[in-house]
Amino acid sequence: MCKILDKINTPKDLKTLSENELVKLCGEIREQMIVRLGATGGHVGSNLGMIEAAVALHYVFDSPADKIIFDVSHQCYAHKLLTGRKAAYTDPDKFFSVSGFTNPDESEHDIFSVGHTSTAISLACGLAKGRDLKGGKNNVIAVVGDGALSGGEAFEGLNNAAALGSNIIIVINDNDMSIAENHGGIYQNLRLLRETEGKADCNLFRALGFDYSFVRDGNDLYNIMDALKNVKGAAHPAVIHMCTVKGKGYRFAEADRENWHYMGPFDVDTGKPLHEKPPVETYEALTALFLSDRMKKDPAITAITAGTPKVLGFGKELREQFPEQFVDVGIAEGHAVAMASGIAKSGGKPVFGLSSSFLQRAYDQLSQDLALNHSPAVILVFFAGIAQGSQTHMGVFDISLAMNIPNLIYLAPSCKEEYFSMLDWGLNQKKHPVMIRVPGVETSSRDAALLSEYAYPARYEIVKQGTIVAILALGNFFALGEGVYEKLKEEYGIHATLINPRYISAVDEEMLQALPGHGHRLVVTLEDGVTDGGFGEKIARFYGSSSMKVLNFGAKKEFVNHVTVEEQYNRYHLTATQIVSDILNALGI
Amino acid sequence: MCKILDKINTPKDLKTLSENELVKLCGEIREQMIVRLGATGGHVGSNLGMIEAAVALHYVFDSPADKIIFDVSHQCYAHKLLTGRKAAYTDPDKFFSVSGFTNPDESEHDIFSVGHTSTAISLACGLAKGRDLKGGKNNVIAVVGDGALSGGEAFEGLNNAAALGSNIIIVINDNDMSIAENHGGIYQNLRLLRETEGKADCNLFRALGFDYSFVRDGNDLYNIMDALKNVKGAAHPAVIHMCTVKGKGYRFAEADRENWHYMGPFDVDTGKPLHEKPPVETYEALTALFLSDRMKKDPAITAITAGTPKVLGFGKELREQFPEQFVDVGIAEGHAVAMASGIAKSGGKPVFGLSSSFLQRAYDQLSQDLALNHSPAVILVFFAGIAQGSQTHMGVFDISLAMNIPNLIYLAPSCKEEYFSMLDWGLNQKKHPVMIRVPGVETSSRDAALLSEYAYPARYEIVKQGTIVAILALGNFFALGEGVYEKLKEEYGIHATLINPRYISAVDEEMLQALPGHGHRLVVTLEDGVTDGGFGEKIARFYGSSSMKVLNFGAKKEFVNHVTVEEQYNRYHLTATQIVSDILNALGI
Repeated sequence: MCKILDKINTPKDLKTLSENELVKLCGEIREQMIVRLGATGGHVGSNLGMIEAAVALHYVFDSPADKIIFDVSHQCYAHKLLTGRKAAYTDPDKFFSVSGFTNPDESEHDIFSVGHTSTAISLACGLAKGRDLKGGKNNVIAVVGDGALSGGEAFEGLNNAAALGSNIIIVINDNDMSIAENHGGIYQNLRLLRETEGKADCNLFRALGFDYSFVRDGNDLYNIMDALKNVKGAAHPAVIHMCTVKGKGYRFAEADRENWHYMGPFDVDTGKPLHEKPPVETYEALTALFLSDRMKKDPAITAITAGTPKVLGFGKELREQFPEQFVDVGIAEGHAVAMASGIAKSGGKPVFGLSSSFLQRAYDQLSQDLALNHSPAVILVFFAGIAQGSQTHMGVFDISLAMNIPNLIYLAPSCKEEYFSMLDWGLNQKKHPVMIRVPGVETSSRDAALLSEYAYPARYEIVKQGTIVAILALGNFFALGEGVYEKLKEEYGIHATLINPRYISAVDEEMLQALPGHGHRLVVTLEDGVTDGGFGEKIARFYGSSSMKVLNFGAKKEFVNHVTVEEQYNRYHLTATQIVSDILNALGI
Repeated sequence: MCKILDKINTPKDLKTLSENELVKLCGEIREQMIVRLGATGGHVGSNLGMIEAAVALHYVFDSPADKIIFDVSHQCYAHKLLTGRKAAYTDPDKFFSVSGFTNPDESEHDIFSVGHTSTAISLACGLAKGRDLKGGKNNVIAVVGDGALSGGEAFEGLNNAAALGSNIIIVINDNDMSIAENHGGIYQNLRLLRETEGKADCNLFRALGFDYSFVRDGNDLYNIMDALKNVKGAAHPAVIHMCTVKGKGYRFAEADRENWHYMGPFDVDTGKPLHEKPPVETYEALTALFLSDRMKKDPAITAITAGTPKVLGFGKELREQFPEQFVDVGIAEGHAVAMASGIAKSGGKPVFGLSSSFLQRAYDQLSQDLALNHSPAVILVFFAGIAQGSQTHMGVFDISLAMNIPNLIYLAPSCKEEYFSMLDWGLNQKKHPVMIRVPGVETSSRDAALLSEYAYPARYEIVKQGTIVAILALGNFFALGEGVYEKLKEEYGIHATLINPRYISAVDEEMLQALPGHGHRLVVTLEDGVTDGGFGEKIARFYGSSSMKVLNFGAKKEFVNHVTVEEQYNRYHLTATQIVSDILNALGI
């Protein structure tokens, strides 16, 4: 069926094709890609939009001598298909043999492992500089989505690339959309440039010093090939502003671009999800319900997102309901935190929600703009904990990152009742920056002892009072703590103490000091994150000079790529069976 | 003598002055400021350049109802003088009664405590948003230096401010200079705008959607007042591009703007430093010597700075000697790390040097762009450790920040020989991202046992083999460890073991496991940084389930503003006397 695609195994095979065949190839790839995306799910919109550009890039340039860097890299499927990994898109048995991001372990055509936004231009600057130092002549090309331009590092990259004085080619893939709609001044200029076909005098890229060219239809192979040929080998920094259609060639994806940004497996003919899941209660949806209810009553409450509104549960309809109280700042987490601090300082009640993995893009602002200034903003950290995801999007580093910054109160609710109790308090107090690690698992409910306020001193909750062993089961891992508790009781007759610490960022010294008096000989900490620099180590330090023994359980400090949760739990001794065995060992039983 | 200045105690007092008197006032302030700067030292260049603008801002606007945010805030002296803190600039007894940065604890006219660059526009966006939510009418003004525009957060701020749709005024103070000369595409546009008096079509700010106005001479009071009056109360985002002269009115500062960016106390008549210090060997100078020597021999070695070349010891002359191998990326630490990763991936040997306090501006890039990609770049962290500085520039958070990121080898040399042994290895290996915590104290020399490579597994150095107590004295605190060792020996006859850990980011498990066998009952860790999330806690965790006792010494997790090192050491139990006393306590002696 796929006559031309059959012959393509490396980028070199493209060079023998006529332009007509290249166009046909794009059609074949698109057809195949839709089938594959239907079976596996993935980043539908960006990848369907990038097929012609990927073919053109590999036809015009000579990868891997020429270096192509994809920003975020969730638009790299056609690139992968063309660079020796075709089977992963054509052979159902091999659909899961490659990841959805570039990865040097897979191919020499992938220069970096990338998953966070706005880094490609900076990385490309480095490749270009390294080339210049050794007198190389290869091209360096960064492929950047328009959404990524809202992130500060993209601008730092543009600013420096413009001054590089040698070959660097930046392809701006403008599909007028990041994940949701774009916001911000730069999009006004992109629109002007689209509307004038690149001819407007007011041109951000020319202002910075780039050679600029405009590609009206980046899904027209000839169009984009011509532009790339023009800058190939250029000895100066160049920007190609290329307009593409997100979801190009698949009508459902073209019609609803936000929802088709990422999609699970779907039926190609109908666009319906293959595995229609029963509606499940999620923390995102509950958060949106809670916030929107409060926002109606209190105009000071402002929800903030950095380009991922659905993390907060805010779909398009809900966003439109709160045009003033819902702010999307683009993929700019640093700005979001500083802005939240400003809103709080002027009497507003900001709530910024983001994924754990992206929290690290705002460390400086968390520390300087928020914590140092005691600004009473609320930060909700979603998708935290061990998961079977990409090594670029792990949710296990936020604990050590945030808990060691002064003044920040970082809370870990053990169930939804506690979550909303903490959120409610956070919104209505005026003294503290408050972070909440939203449980990254299925919603759970229990009769938690709620506090009326969560300011320091930290007060841990004793859920079961026992002896010998005290289990400090933090947030996500409260249920694991219950499992360990039950196992110790049922199988070994040990009536342990089960504690919900509530606080990540502070120790309940009074309670910890009292534990030895209750016959405890061992304290066990469970945290759903990397142990290094985390919660458990504080407890180990606390008891360091006493005779109390401490065992810390959590993830190892390592990057983990698409490993099942089960395997990670086994690796890190995080099953109840392993933990109980380690406890008995430590007790000498 | 200061006839007009005598009458000025609050911004309101300005409103009664004639324009002629306002001009005279600027002269009086400048004269007084030079005397005060001579006596105390400080940020000379930026503050002398900002006098007219500060007077104009407080004349035209109504602080604190109108909110004025200073970026970095090291240009706020005239603002402070005009807002109730005059004595700190006129009365020698009170010269040290205010800090060099804005601080809400000092005055209601200071909205934020600020010290890191590029945050003001984002903070101002928050203040404007908070105002709009409650229907307020005040002006929000961000004052931003041109150097700050190279930082990504400034662009995130501009991008969002442009889309705000309400009052926000951004005053760009363009003195054609950050600390050293500016680099990057944005400065090409600022130059074009200066040369065309703001009339060029190619206008970055207009491209983003701002109402733009140009002030040819920001040291001309009428000029800047007119511009500010024009935008006061505007219901849209506006940029005022104002040209000033760094060091204005003080000939030595105008003539050598880089060196007069910050200056210690000086003789006003001659511009010579008051306390001519004997030339002291510094790690910065030694680093520049080492690197420049290597760079001559190896064109692959590239030194990178993010706007602070002198941190790496590179003055103007040395920079000009290496036009290709020395890169200043502007105040863009994130870009610098990603670029270093790119250079390393293309075979270069990048060395990025920065202050500990700014490392946190690149957390995401350290993790994703560098560590995840195993890029063999070297990062040198200067000015780390407890110091008597501003709460905005503390050097005590880098340990927990960097040591808990996978793959990063973070080393802590105990003397200069060890530092250069580590740097030499880091430059010449091809597998690991390497960070070195350059000792933040006077250079020291000892007969350290150097390794030929510092890859894992970590191997700590036993400097003195003893028993009962093992002292792990990390990097900067090696000398403190020696002091504790001596005191234990001399005064209590305890022959302790003294260990130089060399590695911050990994534990020497073999050595730690062997310690109990040598009769050790207590392990003491000393680190010149916040204990939370740091080195010592790893040791406490390691011994958690054994009978070995552990005591961790380091700084408390808190922001500290201009507190003497001595007082901090006392507070944190970091004198040899206190440590020995705690050791004896823990041993029950």
